[in-house]
Amino acid sequence: MSEFSWPIRVYYEDTDSGGVVYYANYLRYMERARTELLRRAGFEQDALIRDDGVLFAVRSVALEYLQPARFNDLLNVSARITDVRKASLVFAQSVTRDRAGDVVELCTGVVKIACLDANSMRPTAIPEKILREVNGES
Amino acid sequence: MSEFSWPIRVYYEDTDSGGVVYYANYLRYMERARTELLRRAGFEQDALIRDDGVLFAVRSVALEYLQPARFNDLLNVSARITDVRKASLVFAQSVTRDRAGDVVELCTGVVKIACLDANSMRPTAIPEKILREVNGES
Amino acid sequence: MSEFSWPIRVYYEDTDSGGVVYYANYLRYMERARTELLRRAGFEQDALIRDDGVLFAVRSVALEYLQPARFNDLLNVSARITDVRKASLVFAQSVTRDRAGDVVELCTGVVKIACLDANSMRPTAIPEKILREVNGES
Amino acid sequence: MSEFSWPIRVYYEDTDSGGVVYYANYLRYMERARTELLRRAGFEQDALIRDDGVLFAVRSVALEYLQPARFNDLLNVSARITDVRKASLVFAQSVTRDRAGDVVELCTGVVKIACLDANSMRPTAIPEKILREVNGES
Repeated sequence: MSEFSWPIRVYYEDTDSGGVVYYANYLRYMERARTELLRRAGFEQDALIRDDGVLFAVRSVALEYLQPARFNDLLNVSARITDVRKASLVFAQSVTRDRAGDVVELCTGVVKIACLDANSMRPTAIPEKILREVNGES
Repeated sequence: MSEFSWPIRVYYEDTDSGGVVYYANYLRYMERARTELLRRAGFEQDALIRDDGVLFAVRSVALEYLQPARFNDLLNVSARITDVRKASLVFAQSVTRDRAGDVVELCTGVVKIACLDANSMRPTAIPEKILREVNGES
Repeated sequence: MSEFSWPIRVYYEDTDSGGVVYYANYLRYMERARTELLRRAGFEQDALIRDDGVLFAVRSVALEYLQPARFNDLLNVSARITDVRKASLVFAQSVTRDRAGDVVELCTGVVKIACLDANSMRPTAIPEKILREVNGES
Repeated sequence: MSEFSWPIRVYYEDTDSGGVVYYANYLRYMERARTELLRRAGFEQDALIRDDGVLFAVRSVALEYLQPARFNDLLNVSARITDVRKASLVFAQSVTRDRAGDVVELCTGVVKIACLDANSMRPTAIPEKILREVNGES
């Protein structure tokens, strides 16, 4: 599962009165990219809860804000899995803006995700079918 | 249950790049005031779900935007019950800003709420204890 | 400018602990559809502010909540201009979900928009080029 | 300027369909606490922009999610300045829940803030009056 990228448009809802995207909203953008990466790999999170009894929860995030995104910008949000463990994954993520080939990196993040049992909400093993996919063995 | 008012501070998260509070956020403010009105009357919504098996869902809203609220404004959000039926309530709500006694009305709303069975999510009668309170008979 | 429709995916960020899309977020969805309708017609709102000195502000909204949207739903949000005046527009909007051809209407809205001078923030005439487009004369 | 703590109630708007506070919203909570810490120290951010020509922007965040907050929880969000430089500050922040004296830490964060010239948006020295306050010399 190589680099995955998802386009995101900046709407008024995303900005603040400083004229830029509000800092918490990069976490929303990054989750959209992770969700779409899983969907591309064949995994719908509502089905994972229903059929496999697991969900993913964020354990930690570390973000660097490099340049601000602005209203109406068209961004690309990437997600790449950098570490796979029995019950957790680490994503490296990046938000970039491409204006006529001039690509600027706006925000980078490292996000650690845990796999939880949907009933007990305790850590549990990532389903094999997902591990095969993220390990590129499928 | 007469007029109820709740103070709300405008933070960066609430504003947009137009320099004003984003229009959807008045609905968040109005729900905070409705929640605090219920709490003041003795009803915690998590307990209502757990103990009485009911929750409240919004059926319709109608908002008029009169003047914009801005970053760092201290607002007052009022809630007043104007109609009580077996399974629904109507709230009249208003968002105002008071600068040194100069009160300006920024947004008004009418919000219709339905009482739902927390399991079936179908309309159900509002618990008697709440009706007594909102009808001022307690 | 006939009916316009824009697909919107429901992410975790959009839902609340009731298991459904939070009621204020339909206003975010509806604005995305209005923004994309304008873009489709050739108007970028950042350019309208910069080049034409105008922006659009919401004057009133009226929403009916019919059925809840849920996590991971793929929605369609429509926007149709029903009234064009010198300095204001009215949009009729609808949020629907299509599951294998079974289309359900979840939320409808009427949204009145005013054209404002970006400096004075006072009402001003909608630029002729936009009026031509929305009146279907271009 | 010792430890500062600000109470925050969890409303429906803050939660997601997992039944817990959405992970990005802790950044909103933490900014509210930083804003209120500055206000307590005598600094209103709208006045700082207008009168001093400076604003604060977040450069980096690192959050650990320990336990989930839930609908209707009453939280305490703390902010403590741990490092003061010429043009930047570092805050250590924590979100806790106190149920009848049983205090649980839910989320911790380290947030680095830069002082920017409000016109050029480039780094600039933190105003002396703020440095005196945060260094406890006022």
